[in-house]
Amino acid sequence: MLEELRRQVWAANRALPQRGLVLLTWGNVSGIDRASGLVVIKPSGVEYEELTPKNLVVVDLDGHLVEGTLRPSSDTATHLELYKAFPSVGGIVHTHSTYATAWAQTGQDLPCYGTTHADSFYGPVPCTRLLTAAEVETDYEAHTGTVVAEAFRTRGLDPMAVPGVLCACHGPFTWGSDPAQAVENAQILEEVARMALLTRQIAPDAAPAPDYLVEKHYRRKHGPHAYYGQR
Amino acid sequence: MLEELRRQVWAANRALPQRGLVLLTWGNVSGIDRASGLVVIKPSGVEYEELTPKNLVVVDLDGHLVEGTLRPSSDTATHLELYKAFPSVGGIVHTHSTYATAWAQTGQDLPCYGTTHADSFYGPVPCTRLLTAAEVETDYEAHTGTVVAEAFRTRGLDPMAVPGVLCACHGPFTWGSDPAQAVENAQILEEVARMALLTRQIAPDAAPAPDYLVEKHYRRKHGPHAYYGQR
Amino acid sequence: MLEELRRQVWAANRALPQRGLVLLTWGNVSGIDRASGLVVIKPSGVEYEELTPKNLVVVDLDGHLVEGTLRPSSDTATHLELYKAFPSVGGIVHTHSTYATAWAQTGQDLPCYGTTHADSFYGPVPCTRLLTAAEVETDYEAHTGTVVAEAFRTRGLDPMAVPGVLCACHGPFTWGSDPAQAVENAQILEEVARMALLTRQIAPDAAPAPDYLVEKHYRRKHGPHAYYGQR
Amino acid sequence: MLEELRRQVWAANRALPQRGLVLLTWGNVSGIDRASGLVVIKPSGVEYEELTPKNLVVVDLDGHLVEGTLRPSSDTATHLELYKAFPSVGGIVHTHSTYATAWAQTGQDLPCYGTTHADSFYGPVPCTRLLTAAEVETDYEAHTGTVVAEAFRTRGLDPMAVPGVLCACHGPFTWGSDPAQAVENAQILEEVARMALLTRQIAPDAAPAPDYLVEKHYRRKHGPHAYYGQR
Repeated sequence: MLEELRRQVWAANRALPQRGLVLLTWGNVSGIDRASGLVVIKPSGVEYEELTPKNLVVVDLDGHLVEGTLRPSSDTATHLELYKAFPSVGGIVHTHSTYATAWAQTGQDLPCYGTTHADSFYGPVPCTRLLTAAEVETDYEAHTGTVVAEAFRTRGLDPMAVPGVLCACHGPFTWGSDPAQAVENAQILEEVARMALLTRQIAPDAAPAPDYLVEKHYRRKHGPHAYYGQR
Repeated sequence: MLEELRRQVWAANRALPQRGLVLLTWGNVSGIDRASGLVVIKPSGVEYEELTPKNLVVVDLDGHLVEGTLRPSSDTATHLELYKAFPSVGGIVHTHSTYATAWAQTGQDLPCYGTTHADSFYGPVPCTRLLTAAEVETDYEAHTGTVVAEAFRTRGLDPMAVPGVLCACHGPFTWGSDPAQAVENAQILEEVARMALLTRQIAPDAAPAPDYLVEKHYRRKHGPHAYYGQR
Repeated sequence: MLEELRRQVWAANRALPQRGLVLLTWGNVSGIDRASGLVVIKPSGVEYEELTPKNLVVVDLDGHLVEGTLRPSSDTATHLELYKAFPSVGGIVHTHSTYATAWAQTGQDLPCYGTTHADSFYGPVPCTRLLTAAEVETDYEAHTGTVVAEAFRTRGLDPMAVPGVLCACHGPFTWGSDPAQAVENAQILEEVARMALLTRQIAPDAAPAPDYLVEKHYRRKHGPHAYYGQR
Repeated sequence: MLEELRRQVWAANRALPQRGLVLLTWGNVSGIDRASGLVVIKPSGVEYEELTPKNLVVVDLDGHLVEGTLRPSSDTATHLELYKAFPSVGGIVHTHSTYATAWAQTGQDLPCYGTTHADSFYGPVPCTRLLTAAEVETDYEAHTGTVVAEAFRTRGLDPMAVPGVLCACHGPFTWGSDPAQAVENAQILEEVARMALLTRQIAPDAAPAPDYLVEKHYRRKHGPHAYYGQR
């Protein structure tokens, strides 16, 4: 039953180095089968070229190992918290991609400076608060996820309209309806993070794009009145 | 009759990812047959590798579909306005190339800091004003084109001497006598946008190149007294 | 007996251009056999593609040539001082990689702005003091090594927890338990140097990551309680 | 007699795009046969892949066409002035490489911030003064060369110790004992220009490397006491 999901998660993990989003083994993708509540995820510290659909790890939403001989990604608990908090999400990506990580290291939200950003992220991409020492010492990875969920809840953000986050002093997580879309959002986040940095370099006081332009571009691509693409 | 134009537009669209000007499907090229007033353009949201001369879309200058089974680029109305406003233009390119987009996001004109810029763009590349909320809500893409034309008209610029523009909070459009030249101008605009940003980083108060140097370099390559190249 | 070490040092030198860490012949890797005290190192000014396990040079810790027909790297004396000062080190890399060298040219330590850095370097990467004129004029390369050792000694740093250094106005050295790990640390240092520069560009007053987060990430990957990877 | 020089100039021109130093046809290499005073140079506006040793152009030092059916590079007169002013030079390269051009656009000298620079350029790389309007209007390309020579003469610089220059608002020229060395110097200039920009970004008030370190590194690689490499 998880054959197809294993294949998707495998292909999405392989895409990370192909798209220039990871160095070494610094990223992981998972996907969830909502019917069974089972999550397929990259094993920890394994090279992308050594991955196969078969050597991926299957865990349930409580983190129990269901299938696999390797240890799951050390970030597994973060993925699980995000699946629990965001019920529409079907795939999650974590990377340390250069520009998104640089923004995360500043603790600042990523401003929406133009239509490239607005086409995929409906407004600024939030940066979480720093975890407290207590949150880091116990269940660090699970707290990373709950602090993301907290950021979306307290700001009233829709995770499907803003499909990514910056974890302060750490790096980005992105998601989507499936693993492939989560990878595409990771690539877009990296590019708009780069553009935003360059925008600030040219004009330190650059203003975000006006709300009506953000609204227009997001709606061109998403929702009932979308008219981008062939469907 | 449009066989050759279809081939040119296809090759020009394929060149966008090859030259590093687009991520995903973020760019499109069109070409016009001035005799018939027909425009060949990329279909919306289709991967560049899936394009063929045959699956391109043909529209007339009023935007009516003339040939093709796919939907034309969502930016088609912008292309059409530019063809109507600039009668010498034979090909148009839109991208979200990184550095040109960063400048567009600042709302600033791209200064002409040196001969690399002056060889192809006779002076600063203008950045348009922001569209109003009303212009965005109705006929957004057509207004994008009329606001470009307005920028050239109000500043008295010759679109063949300054073959490109930055659309505020959006990205660049470039053009040329044919689709291939429009792509070359997109590549040059991206490179001079990058050089200009780096110039400002080194010297925030850098002065533009003197007018006589801009004049000289533009005339070395363009017009009756050009002496660059083999013709 | 040194067959295997020669192979490791050869592969590690070849990895430098493959990973984008060197231009021309601007980098070198060595490895040490602690039992015999012999060091295998790249010959000076030789292209990486021309290297073979056989044409590497073997010297003892006093710098006497033991095997080889080519002259050893002009930086050999620096490597030897580091092997003498840091007894757990098995491999050393010197490069002029772009971002690490830029930091070295400022004379500043590389701050630890996030978990990407903390995963591999337990706190800031130190920048040495400048060598004096006297130190440069006599035994320059040996003094380069003793000044690195001085920086670690005076700051009380563990070279296995902070496996790299910036030499002021010069460039980085990294090390590890073997040549391959030293190269991996060179690649990580370059990437975190790049991220740190970008972090400062966005937020000139960005704060380093809190100590408890640095501690947590370093310990996830290193030491008795590590839980990253498969072992 | 010029067979070997034609081959060298051809290979050096081909190296420009391979080493990432040019976009489109924005660069050219020449070489001189000092015995005959003949210069082999790239034809103007021709793609690098279309070059052959045979279709290069031969001119004498007065610029008269000696062999070839194509027009020589539009920058030929600049090359000729440099060969006349600098008798030890055997090959010359002009590019619009990104970082060196950005520095040229600021009108500032490129500071020597470290050993990477000092290994190949003995001190700052000078930026020329701007040409006057009169110098641009008549014999522009020849004046470009005489203004370079003026910069070296007035500052008392040895062109073989500082084998390159930044032409204000234009771009770099580099040279060497032969065309291949001139290309290598073009590549090094681009890399140290990039490092210098990054150094300033981290520390706007970064100090140049001390003279004794510059002296040491230059002498390690050049002159009678050089000990870098195998000779």
